[in-house]
Amino acid sequence: MDVMEEASRREALGQEIIHMEIGQPGARAPAAVINAAQEALANGYFGYTEARGIKALRDRVSRHYRETYGVDVPESRIIVTTGSSAGFNLAFLGAFDPGDRIALTSPGYPAYRNILKALGLEPVEISVGPETRWALTPDLLERSHAEKPLAGVLIASPGNPTGTMMRPDALKALCESAQELGIRFISDEIYHGLVYEGETATALRYCDDAIVINSFSKYYCMTGWRVGWMIVPEALVRPIERIAQSLYICAPDISQRAGIAAFDATEELEIVKAGYARNRALLLDRLPKVGFQELLPVDGAFYVYAGVRSFTNDSSDFTRRMLAEAGVATTPGADFDHDRGNGYLRFSFAGSHKDMIAAMDRLTAWLK
Amino acid sequence: MDVMEEASRREALGQEIIHMEIGQPGARAPAAVINAAQEALANGYFGYTEARGIKALRDRVSRHYRETYGVDVPESRIIVTTGSSAGFNLAFLGAFDPGDRIALTSPGYPAYRNILKALGLEPVEISVGPETRWALTPDLLERSHAEKPLAGVLIASPGNPTGTMMRPDALKALCESAQELGIRFISDEIYHGLVYEGETATALRYCDDAIVINSFSKYYCMTGWRVGWMIVPEALVRPIERIAQSLYICAPDISQRAGIAAFDATEELEIVKAGYARNRALLLDRLPKVGFQELLPVDGAFYVYAGVRSFTNDSSDFTRRMLAEAGVATTPGADFDHDRGNGYLRFSFAGSHKDMIAAMDRLTAWLK
Repeated sequence: MDVMEEASRREALGQEIIHMEIGQPGARAPAAVINAAQEALANGYFGYTEARGIKALRDRVSRHYRETYGVDVPESRIIVTTGSSAGFNLAFLGAFDPGDRIALTSPGYPAYRNILKALGLEPVEISVGPETRWALTPDLLERSHAEKPLAGVLIASPGNPTGTMMRPDALKALCESAQELGIRFISDEIYHGLVYEGETATALRYCDDAIVINSFSKYYCMTGWRVGWMIVPEALVRPIERIAQSLYICAPDISQRAGIAAFDATEELEIVKAGYARNRALLLDRLPKVGFQELLPVDGAFYVYAGVRSFTNDSSDFTRRMLAEAGVATTPGADFDHDRGNGYLRFSFAGSHKDMIAAMDRLTAWLK
Repeated sequence: MDVMEEASRREALGQEIIHMEIGQPGARAPAAVINAAQEALANGYFGYTEARGIKALRDRVSRHYRETYGVDVPESRIIVTTGSSAGFNLAFLGAFDPGDRIALTSPGYPAYRNILKALGLEPVEISVGPETRWALTPDLLERSHAEKPLAGVLIASPGNPTGTMMRPDALKALCESAQELGIRFISDEIYHGLVYEGETATALRYCDDAIVINSFSKYYCMTGWRVGWMIVPEALVRPIERIAQSLYICAPDISQRAGIAAFDATEELEIVKAGYARNRALLLDRLPKVGFQELLPVDGAFYVYAGVRSFTNDSSDFTRRMLAEAGVATTPGADFDHDRGNGYLRFSFAGSHKDMIAAMDRLTAWLK
């Protein structure tokens, strides 16, 4: 957040900034989504919807799981949410009691621990590294649980900032381990659709008790629309629906209706994704050449989490200087990992290819 | 929620239901709002906005306070929210610690206590009655605080279900009492604009430390757009902004942009309000004639909270029968008041005048 503010401040002063700090697509929502929204506006009345979301959208999400993953998810287990942010909040409130301990990976998305803390829950950060492809393993989970019991575990695959897509067998093993230990499994799948290497698996294939959280923000390019969905076990539907009714009433009506169209915009969205793939190839080629090290697996999402130890011991200072002197905004690793984050920073490659080339040129000149 | 489901079930079976259970305008958003949304869709990209909302909207809200109330509220103290639901959640998380006790009136809006409980806070319901126009008073507040200390107090004016608009002197006295006792004052002002009798005052006039919550849902007819705002003391801006960033990221971009136009749609909105006023006059005339008693002050909002003791000791059963036999859906008082709610039910008169006439005719026939 501070990086974004500083970048805005500099832009207001006339400096030209390349934004590689923001985790959102540079592309606008697909034409089919815009059209659906326009049609809804022309004909419709936007009122409160059912707390779980409009049925047509739930039906469409259910079909998506059948077609994409071959998994049968009835619409009755699907809850439309006000973005994945609401999904996390509802999952935590619905599945846990105050004081419960929930395992997260470090590095990881900082909002997880912020939301958990705001709700009186305890985030338990488990350090992961290259030896496990920056993913949690049954062994790490079991050891943490043995030290002090966990009530839940939350993983993201593809992960932010690591980009790791857990391989199906690794995900299966972790799901089964959580189930054996009696730990609630929460799977953040908001970067599904954006996978460049390896197979995409959903936790629902391995664990019917998992809570899966997804969103229209990333692959579907709909960040500002604030709409997503979660899939919850039958027993949690009613409790979570009640909390959703009190805390949100419902997700935005127009975004729900437009979201239905997003599933049929594959052609347009795959072109956007091909652009990310080009950006990814560019960064993986050029970043090591100018001295960035230990690029983490960039299987999916649109981030490169890159080591900066050859330049600095303080990546926060380094990102500030990079912004000031090269006009390239990135996110310091400390946001994602308290312990080792000073040795890393995160590039987002969700912007245009032209911007990515310019950024690499600027960094090459600046780092000389 | 159960009433709505039962009403939907009956409609699906072919019964024609008049909806007087739902707290939302029957009118669609004003043309200016629809136009602004269409323009934004045609030209724009919807991304994450600042967590506090887009500056143009904050500026417009600030101007609204100057013009409507003569109160100077800088945009820096305004936080755009995903509906008032988010406002309550953020106010509670930002202002209180787990276990804190917050006073509410009974009868009152049930989501308050649901949200408080979900967040590990303790709702303290203070019974109010006709002797104080169904509003909280300094005396009642002080007595409750003396029994066991309160951290906050939340009032709604106009209130739901009571319709009470607190008179400026009564609001002033209550604000001052809370301030003297060191209790955080939260003022739900989402029904402002819908006042038929008496003067409208904002708590900001009397208490700079108050948190004021407002919304585009009611007067502005934008329920399904999920956008509102809150005004917070300077010291709470940054903490609440941080929580908002983690819990919501931002309010829907399109709704924020459209909301700006809502403030200039007064002509259209006053016509909608005149419709409510006609409905209100009709209900206040006809409900007593068929035996409803003790109609509470209907100063504002679009509800009549009516006594049903001449018919029943169980208003929940009575509303079920009214729905089944007369096809009129209402909300039982138990939703708003555990102790005395069985003697009341709530009519919403936000629907069309034609529906209101039909409902009164049906009730007249049914109650014979």
